[in-house]
Amino acid sequence: MNWLLPEYIADVLPHEAAHIELLRRAVLDLFRVRGYELVMPPLLEHLDSLLTGSGSDLRLRTFKLVDQLSGRTLGLRADMTPQVARIDAHLLNRQGVTRLCYCGSVLHTLPALQASSREPIQLGAELFGYAGIEADLEAIRLMAVVLGTAGIPASRIDIGHVGVFRALAGAAGLADDVEAKILQLLQVKDIPSLHDACEKVAEPYRSAFLRLPELYGDGNILETASRELPALPEIASALEAMRHLQTSLPELPLSFDLADLRGYHYHNGVVFAAYYPGFPSAIALGGRYDGVGKDFGRTRPATGFSMDLREVARLAVSGKAGGAIMAPHSATDSALASQIEALREQGEVVVELLPGESCCEGPLCDRQLVENDGQWTVRETIGD
Amino acid sequence: MNWLLPEYIADVLPHEAAHIELLRRAVLDLFRVRGYELVMPPLLEHLDSLLTGSGSDLRLRTFKLVDQLSGRTLGLRADMTPQVARIDAHLLNRQGVTRLCYCGSVLHTLPALQASSREPIQLGAELFGYAGIEADLEAIRLMAVVLGTAGIPASRIDIGHVGVFRALAGAAGLADDVEAKILQLLQVKDIPSLHDACEKVAEPYRSAFLRLPELYGDGNILETASRELPALPEIASALEAMRHLQTSLPELPLSFDLADLRGYHYHNGVVFAAYYPGFPSAIALGGRYDGVGKDFGRTRPATGFSMDLREVARLAVSGKAGGAIMAPHSATDSALASQIEALREQGEVVVELLPGESCCEGPLCDRQLVENDGQWTVRETIGD
Repeated sequence: MNWLLPEYIADVLPHEAAHIELLRRAVLDLFRVRGYELVMPPLLEHLDSLLTGSGSDLRLRTFKLVDQLSGRTLGLRADMTPQVARIDAHLLNRQGVTRLCYCGSVLHTLPALQASSREPIQLGAELFGYAGIEADLEAIRLMAVVLGTAGIPASRIDIGHVGVFRALAGAAGLADDVEAKILQLLQVKDIPSLHDACEKVAEPYRSAFLRLPELYGDGNILETASRELPALPEIASALEAMRHLQTSLPELPLSFDLADLRGYHYHNGVVFAAYYPGFPSAIALGGRYDGVGKDFGRTRPATGFSMDLREVARLAVSGKAGGAIMAPHSATDSALASQIEALREQGEVVVELLPGESCCEGPLCDRQLVENDGQWTVRETIGD
Repeated sequence: MNWLLPEYIADVLPHEAAHIELLRRAVLDLFRVRGYELVMPPLLEHLDSLLTGSGSDLRLRTFKLVDQLSGRTLGLRADMTPQVARIDAHLLNRQGVTRLCYCGSVLHTLPALQASSREPIQLGAELFGYAGIEADLEAIRLMAVVLGTAGIPASRIDIGHVGVFRALAGAAGLADDVEAKILQLLQVKDIPSLHDACEKVAEPYRSAFLRLPELYGDGNILETASRELPALPEIASALEAMRHLQTSLPELPLSFDLADLRGYHYHNGVVFAAYYPGFPSAIALGGRYDGVGKDFGRTRPATGFSMDLREVARLAVSGKAGGAIMAPHSATDSALASQIEALREQGEVVVELLPGESCCEGPLCDRQLVENDGQWTVRETIGD
């Protein structure tokens, strides 16, 4: 049974592959005209480099190998974002703003979701070297444009800000283990356990932690948060940043969630996630992650987003396949050969039959080249 | 030193990545209009499936992993051709001719050549279901078109046919170990050792094996071979196939090499290799490998070729980078914003500065958007 693939691993067959390729090009073109330069980091790196600055989740999801050349442990990339941050920090070494984009397979030891592939195609864009909210704004807007171009405009874009939790944890003087516990409970929104975990936390922070899971909804919750949360400067500036996003992006279906702490160890500012009906999880994710470059020798402000092109392509309705033209074998007919060449140059798919072949099973041939008084012309294929 | 990559593993930075992407699209488009349908097999498969029908060389070059979900041994693909044969044999299950193409990274435990990457980008096309020489002809012609399109037309295309050696080995009744030994010596063209290894081989086969390494050159060697090699029907038909290629492809720089036995365990007919000045090895390789599908449940005639897109892109002179237009931040200027949008829709790269930024270090900005009486126009950037 050599044709059986490992679980959560699949081939992409022609119809779907053509659709993925079309979307890939369309999105990379969107990035390109906005000044995002394509980079291609490797599939394989030293494990330490791949896991720099990330949490234990990525460690568990990363396949490990031994390098025969060095004896060192290598990892297969499970996330390209730290690789792109490494390229910005170390290889390009530019002082100003750098925009990079990428599209490539990543591998996971376990599927991220119930039905996910273990080989997502990660497609994303990152903006380095700019600490202001305008960079986050650009990233969110670009994410929305990408989803719109793919034909799956986000039905909701959740905005969070890890600075709120970070400020509360700092001001409350939480021990590391208590902070980790509260963080984990907030992430899964386990309210009863959250009550227990916060028992010994001093007021007003205890109430604030318990209030966080309720602070989600439209822009009004920013005012609520402003009134109800402790008046810490980091909280004020986090809320101000989110307010700026709201006023700048009236065209997008923004909502706010102060308990969205995904990637807390990695992110340090605005985080965002786009949703689409029928997909159980976020279809695109992003946020600010200043400082990841530090481990590569240079701290740089950074924000960006990525998505799984396989999932995007699956959700997006693919256009009707373009059809193809069937042509007889042309070896001895130069008029036919040049007609085939001309049609192909116009972008038509022309399947040339080999000697003895009478029909084409591959690309759907809806037309054929037929001879009429020495002229080769394209005709609709009648019947089937 | 987290930025150090493993040996023979490298990032592809913007200039090179843009060039690779352009070539990738151009070649996949060539394939598409000829009816080759794109497929995307996975990076990871059960080891047995990946190594089906292949020699020990591929086994040594394949990275191995343990699947946490099944406990089985997985391999990272080191060659996509057997994967594509599996898709043809098992998944598509068409009776007639099927044309497939692919482009993706493969991984090697050791570099194939002195300076090769351990992560080539394999780009190729395969034609299944047609046993006649016209399919090989199509493959060779398409390989030449691809190299021409990439700007590196082959300076020489070597044609061989593993049927010649196979026929001699069969007729001489060689023991498996002797056959393997002679094969290996022919592959490295070690003539003195070949003399020793052939010592006990019966005539006329002994002389024929010793003559093979000299049978290379232009089409005349086909006549020489016809005169000098034993009159076995398989040899006659192999020579006939090569003669057909020569008369059908007068526009290509064909040469013939009867001792070209690369991939002998895998190939079973015409084999071909394209060379380009300055590259020490073949830049593209292909041949007939009927029967590989058998291990996937269905024997199918098959021929095709592949190349490393990284190497092709390195050899091909990349065009001048397209330049870019620098624009001021447009948040409060809708005339500017729509001008930026219009330029981007024309395919221009427009880098919008973020507030406080004064220049762009990324894509080379050779023009800028400037305001003149309320009109935004593109101007050449003067000086540097």
